[in-house]
Amino acid sequence: MSSVRAIALAARDGGRVLARLSSERRTALLHRVASGLDAGRSRIAEANAADVESTAKMVSSGSISAALAARLPLPDTKIDALVQGIHAIADQPEPLGKVLRATTLGDGLELEQVSSPIGALLVIFESRPDALPQIAALALRSGNGLVLKGGREAVRSNRVLHALITEALSPDVPAGTIGLVEARAEVSALLELDGLLDLVIPRGSGALVKHIQQNTRIPVLGHAEGVCHVYLHADADPEMAEKIVLDAKLDYPAACNAMETLLIERAVCETAGRRAVEALRQAGCVLHGDIESAHVYGIAADAHFRTEYGDRAASIAIVSDLDAAVSHIHQYGSGHTESIVTHDEHAARRFLDSVDSACVFHNASTRFADGYRFGLGAEVGISTGRIHARGPVGVDGLLTTRWRLRGGGHTVGAVKSGDWAFDWQQRV
Amino acid sequence: MSSVRAIALAARDGGRVLARLSSERRTALLHRVASGLDAGRSRIAEANAADVESTAKMVSSGSISAALAARLPLPDTKIDALVQGIHAIADQPEPLGKVLRATTLGDGLELEQVSSPIGALLVIFESRPDALPQIAALALRSGNGLVLKGGREAVRSNRVLHALITEALSPDVPAGTIGLVEARAEVSALLELDGLLDLVIPRGSGALVKHIQQNTRIPVLGHAEGVCHVYLHADADPEMAEKIVLDAKLDYPAACNAMETLLIERAVCETAGRRAVEALRQAGCVLHGDIESAHVYGIAADAHFRTEYGDRAASIAIVSDLDAAVSHIHQYGSGHTESIVTHDEHAARRFLDSVDSACVFHNASTRFADGYRFGLGAEVGISTGRIHARGPVGVDGLLTTRWRLRGGGHTVGAVKSGDWAFDWQQRV
Repeated sequence: MSSVRAIALAARDGGRVLARLSSERRTALLHRVASGLDAGRSRIAEANAADVESTAKMVSSGSISAALAARLPLPDTKIDALVQGIHAIADQPEPLGKVLRATTLGDGLELEQVSSPIGALLVIFESRPDALPQIAALALRSGNGLVLKGGREAVRSNRVLHALITEALSPDVPAGTIGLVEARAEVSALLELDGLLDLVIPRGSGALVKHIQQNTRIPVLGHAEGVCHVYLHADADPEMAEKIVLDAKLDYPAACNAMETLLIERAVCETAGRRAVEALRQAGCVLHGDIESAHVYGIAADAHFRTEYGDRAASIAIVSDLDAAVSHIHQYGSGHTESIVTHDEHAARRFLDSVDSACVFHNASTRFADGYRFGLGAEVGISTGRIHARGPVGVDGLLTTRWRLRGGGHTVGAVKSGDWAFDWQQRV
Repeated sequence: MSSVRAIALAARDGGRVLARLSSERRTALLHRVASGLDAGRSRIAEANAADVESTAKMVSSGSISAALAARLPLPDTKIDALVQGIHAIADQPEPLGKVLRATTLGDGLELEQVSSPIGALLVIFESRPDALPQIAALALRSGNGLVLKGGREAVRSNRVLHALITEALSPDVPAGTIGLVEARAEVSALLELDGLLDLVIPRGSGALVKHIQQNTRIPVLGHAEGVCHVYLHADADPEMAEKIVLDAKLDYPAACNAMETLLIERAVCETAGRRAVEALRQAGCVLHGDIESAHVYGIAADAHFRTEYGDRAASIAIVSDLDAAVSHIHQYGSGHTESIVTHDEHAARRFLDSVDSACVFHNASTRFADGYRFGLGAEVGISTGRIHARGPVGVDGLLTTRWRLRGGGHTVGAVKSGDWAFDWQQRV
């Protein structure tokens, strides 16, 4: 048995032990993880300083980006937030064993559908080592085994964080419940284990997500792209349009929920449209138009509508009406988040009903598409997939269900012989 | 563009039109489908007779199994059931647009999570042509586009059923909303379209399901195997044990929810165990034991515990206690359905909590694991996957969710500048 297979098996088996703990013990375990990190600050700081130092060299040699390196440091304030966040996850209401449906099937036969852990998760993340304890806490809360793979820049920080968490697991669950791998080859091997691992969650660049989606049969929760749209409808208020467009594009251009394409209805291209375009231009945003918008606004006619700029740049297109806007979004979008700006309630409703993206907004910035902002507590990720979980995903995305049936010797033969009959009464 | 790509695109686009219809119009459309099938009986009968005739030749030449051929005929009684079933699906409560969660994020910013169609489905089924209208009705009810691939034996029946359904779609939704393909090569091409098709549902043999799982990146809803267990605990009532074991194995041995392995706790191997084993033997069931059970009951010591016999045959193992039974199930089972027979409530609870199969039963036959018996209405399939939907799946398995956010010009920048603040109030 290969070593990664052993790691995956240990996570699956450990998850089963974890799932059988009482809610109180799982909660206590999480508080122990938080306290362990709190007490381990000096160990974390030492390892992190070494990672930061060696990464600085990689940045100067050009083998790693400055943006990636910037996410590496773990100052005391970040540890504070981590510790507080995990105590908060510990105090969340118990997510396991919730009765989602309950039906009496007939005399003496009771069916329940209850929330359950998925089983064993593989989470692959880049650079940010504070992701490790956050993810581990969510897996522990939801009763799942976990295999983690961090970035090579953060290898020392990750080892210490992982060691501190593992120490806190004892004696309730085996140390292997949360596994850590470091080599890329191990990830490739893990991605083959579709009978053992139940869900892969990549947290990182679109390239990472796409690579994983294309190299595994394990279901992947995530999003490779965020090509988000803001659509200025004929009834868009010019002031609101400018505010939303600037926020959606420039609040944090590298975010997946930032606007990449601005769709302007022809009727308002000289009013709300021009005002928004001018505001973007003055804010230093590079604009890429279709032929019509290039002509109207004097910008380059070089838009590629499938591009996620992730920067101070945007595509602009002029559309004839709402249906054309929806068609554009369906043709070029990534199914992440789209927003209509309008005072026309009817048009807004039609937009929200017609666009089949994970998030559809009316008069709000696309930047609200986020688990924290949605009030989900900790965020597992944002999914543009259409099954299981969609859009910003909280701890619910780490759960599945099981059916429990309790009887008194009931058989299907008794139904056929007329000795017992179905009489369904859905109670929950 | 290849023709299958065009078929898939038409299904996706048609699904979008379907999803935007009012609930009343979708309901009326479904009633029209049912009435259309009712009125088309003679066309169906003619095509089906031709299929039955040509299949009879394939059976005599050995190129098709008699079991498969037996599922082909569509007598008037089956059409009656179909018509009635589709009227019932039409009258089900609207599954789309249900508000699953609603949160006020802060002053004037309202978030809702609503049930939505998945998008475009691919359903592959064998032989039974009555599956076609059933599946089409479920897709229509849930607002999904659909591509169907039926068995070659039923090609004429499927064509007529598909034509009758397509006629009933007009004028509300395009004819391509429900597509039909016939050639195997087309299925291979469709399985490549993971950007266009959102879910594959294979309805047929385990070999079919396994083949599809191994040849697509589209999520697959189904089960390749049903290796179900009945476990006779130390406190099993011998009479109840016999009743449940006989029903679980022999009510319909070819079903995926039939028992394949009987686990007997050592403490009752001479009482409840022997009685159940004798009853199986007398009913003509071939028994395959582990070494101990072979010795105790005088049966062959040739059990392969991963085998799904699908016939009047079963594996037998003697286990030391509940933990050993759970370990056996986790090691050899397929995660479908397992049942404990016991009068010990504490042991039953522990079994239901520990076994992580889709269905876990206490004192009931495994044969109850079925969408109809669970009271889900029409069954989409039984899933042994761990994400999205698990166990018997009703129309809910064809749904996903979307997030809708309504504001009044809200920006994330306003949070940062202190002009607006989150104040989450979950309402639903």
